Amino acid sequence: MSKLLKVITGIFIWTICSVSAQNVADVPIPTQAQLDWQSAELVAVFHYDLHVFDGKDYNQWENRITPVADYNIFNPTKLDTDQWVKAVADAGFEIAIITATHETGFAIYQSDVNPYSMKALKWRDGKGDIVRDFVESCHKYGVKPGIYIGIRWNSFYGIFDFMVNGDNQFAKNRQQYYNRMAEGMVEELMSRYGDLAIVWFDGGAHGPELGGPDVLSVFEKYQSDCIFYHNSQRADIRWGGSETGTVPYPSWGTYPFPYSHSTNQEVVLANDFQLLKEGDPDGEYYMPAMSDAPLRGYNGRHEWFWVAGDEEHIFPLENLMNMYYKSVGRNTSLILGLTPDPDGLLPEPDVKRLKEFGEEIKRRFSDPVASVSGRGKEIKLRLPRRQLINHVVIQENIAEGERVREFIIEGNTADGWQVIFEGSCIGHKFIHRFDNMQVDEVRLRIPESRGEPQIKTLEVFNVN
Amino acid sequence: MSKLLKVITGIFIWTICSVSAQNVADVPIPTQAQLDWQSAELVAVFHYDLHVFDGKDYNQWENRITPVADYNIFNPTKLDTDQWVKAVADAGFEIAIITATHETGFAIYQSDVNPYSMKALKWRDGKGDIVRDFVESCHKYGVKPGIYIGIRWNSFYGIFDFMVNGDNQFAKNRQQYYNRMAEGMVEELMSRYGDLAIVWFDGGAHGPELGGPDVLSVFEKYQSDCIFYHNSQRADIRWGGSETGTVPYPSWGTYPFPYSHSTNQEVVLANDFQLLKEGDPDGEYYMPAMSDAPLRGYNGRHEWFWVAGDEEHIFPLENLMNMYYKSVGRNTSLILGLTPDPDGLLPEPDVKRLKEFGEEIKRRFSDPVASVSGRGKEIKLRLPRRQLINHVVIQENIAEGERVREFIIEGNTADGWQVIFEGSCIGHKFIHRFDNMQVDEVRLRIPESRGEPQIKTLEVFNVN
Repeated sequence: MSKLLKVITGIFIWTICSVSAQNVADVPIPTQAQLDWQSAELVAVFHYDLHVFDGKDYNQWENRITPVADYNIFNPTKLDTDQWVKAVADAGFEIAIITATHETGFAIYQSDVNPYSMKALKWRDGKGDIVRDFVESCHKYGVKPGIYIGIRWNSFYGIFDFMVNGDNQFAKNRQQYYNRMAEGMVEELMSRYGDLAIVWFDGGAHGPELGGPDVLSVFEKYQSDCIFYHNSQRADIRWGGSETGTVPYPSWGTYPFPYSHSTNQEVVLANDFQLLKEGDPDGEYYMPAMSDAPLRGYNGRHEWFWVAGDEEHIFPLENLMNMYYKSVGRNTSLILGLTPDPDGLLPEPDVKRLKEFGEEIKRRFSDPVASVSGRGKEIKLRLPRRQLINHVVIQENIAEGERVREFIIEGNTADGWQVIFEGSCIGHKFIHRFDNMQVDEVRLRIPESRGEPQIKTLEVFNVN
Repeated sequence: MSKLLKVITGIFIWTICSVSAQNVADVPIPTQAQLDWQSAELVAVFHYDLHVFDGKDYNQWENRITPVADYNIFNPTKLDTDQWVKAVADAGFEIAIITATHETGFAIYQSDVNPYSMKALKWRDGKGDIVRDFVESCHKYGVKPGIYIGIRWNSFYGIFDFMVNGDNQFAKNRQQYYNRMAEGMVEELMSRYGDLAIVWFDGGAHGPELGGPDVLSVFEKYQSDCIFYHNSQRADIRWGGSETGTVPYPSWGTYPFPYSHSTNQEVVLANDFQLLKEGDPDGEYYMPAMSDAPLRGYNGRHEWFWVAGDEEHIFPLENLMNMYYKSVGRNTSLILGLTPDPDGLLPEPDVKRLKEFGEEIKRRFSDPVASVSGRGKEIKLRLPRRQLINHVVIQENIAEGERVREFIIEGNTADGWQVIFEGSCIGHKFIHRFDNMQVDEVRLRIPESRGEPQIKTLEVFNVN
């Protein structure tokens, strides 16, 4: 090799490394489905099952071990999934999920592998398919549909924590049958209703290595661009460690395991699910947390399913807004549980609260005082004039991974630069609210990051 | 009281007692349903279930503990229950039974309490009801319908010998659910299809005192004039102790227990079910035996369900005729098991054999040489002239109970009176075949009976 060639080659290699150092960081990168998921921010999950119609208070433990006496109580005479989905679409929810099956084992669609499904009903002469109705309503209102599947519990078939009771040959045969039935349901749900935003296995789905069905390969066959949540092999998101609709700060979008449950349980369970809540900035898997809560979770109730008389337990608007700050504002999606009633409608008080919630989010965050995007260790945002602000919203371009590890946000007041917040995680979105402050400039300094920070948005607001 | 009045009263009482002694014997009296049942003599039972369609040989034990992988294999594209029922009606069968459920647990009708039923099928768009088709065909051809219900085994639901596996609360709750489901199915089957000749619980139905469903009271509510067979409280007929289509002689129509299984098992099981086979002339319950066998039970097979390639195992005509003598001719009904195929038709070789069987019975027994009826210890039957006979058929009027305990049948030959047969039980029907004999008179002597013997028919035949 000539001396000249060596020099040229050297320059070329240096150039590549230089570009790498700037634009590619050694951090996990989300899939498109994960980007879409986090971008949605607000996700509704509608719970509907036989026991909504039984006239009794829901008791999850009892429900798991007691088959519903008469499945023909399922009779939502005014069913209107348009009404459900419009309520969440109007409130700004971009994804809506339906429980195709929950813990009774009853499937609210037309299954050809699970006889305990809508085909068994007198309702709509056995032709009802609420999953189909729901998905069509989602398409109508521009909401991405997701499907929730419960296979861990099945009070009808006798499944407890994934397993058929007993260890004789009969139990083993029924376990095999059940696993194949579960795979068959997943195949129906993955193949019949078009592209899904998420497939959510309630309490997870054992992988085959734990004696469970192989739902993952069925999922992968039909839904290549979709969130899989979750089994002992894979989870594209993780539970946020509580059902409070919030996570602590920070809640990193990365995690040290490719799954969120079942193995390494001692690590996961420790300190009240601290790992699930906080994640791990050095985790090699992109797997952001969700913050889930039922809308009817206020003041002594916590109801994923409709129960008579729970209207007074709908979270007040201010509680929902606090939840929003501590979920969407902390790099997680907010999953709100909604409860269609025995008529087949989302009750009006719930619809009204969702409307208020959507309007309040819009009121606070649709009109920034100023906004900027940029790369590097310091981003400056100059305001048109010195004025009041009390919120800052920062978003990383997470398509390139979560890069920020430490940041300081400051405002230039009449008395000079003052610290507004010193933080660590930004991720998809960081929202901070603070006491009114008069500033003419805001700056974001990032002392520590993996690779070059990429700030998609730095915005400030003055919210009355 | 005056002296005269006393005398008159005394005469009146004496008269009543005298009538009693002649016309009422201290023997159990059958119900109308039992009379109809025994009068039918030939009963067909059609077995049809999911595994007929699975392409595998039937293995009862495996079938009990292995759910059928895909219930949508049930697809009898040419189903024609008229063809089934016509085949047995033409052969002289007066009652035909259909297995509404068998050991898979699958119900071949439109159940609203058991989702594992025809509603689950793609076949006929989930609207099929083979029990209804079958009952309508029975009415069309003048055959009385019966329904067979299997609740002792259920491989889908996980029922083994009546019980849910396990003793935890979940198993107990599912047992309760299953019991209610079983009662619900019985209510549907008892109330939707009109009057039935028999309701047959496969392997019995535990009564509530054994932790089973209370099917008896449901039955009694809807089917007041029908054979109940059977649970631990009641049995209107009894199993004849084998599946050979025969019973030994004698087989008394009475039995010492009101049920035929589950309790007093040591007595019932002793000596290869001897008690079931023979009954007990002093038994206080009227409960005649049945002689059951599958038509495809010849030469190394014994198949209640259709299996490919079994045509060569259809009993030859002579075997069926021998069975007839040892069942109908021994005071029991002959229950012949028939096997519709996956197309939904009774296979032509089976139809052909039934036709031959019916014709042969008719050929042998429709044209008696002579016939008589009568009461008392001796019945004489004078022939038009001295001629050949080789069969005698005797029937008691069992509406008044089985009364004969010992009898001798003799023929008056050229050499004087010769004994044809010395027997004990007659009951509904006694058939005896013997070597050709030239007689001009036959007499039936009854040395021992309970009350006055009532002979409905004494007939002799000359069968070529």
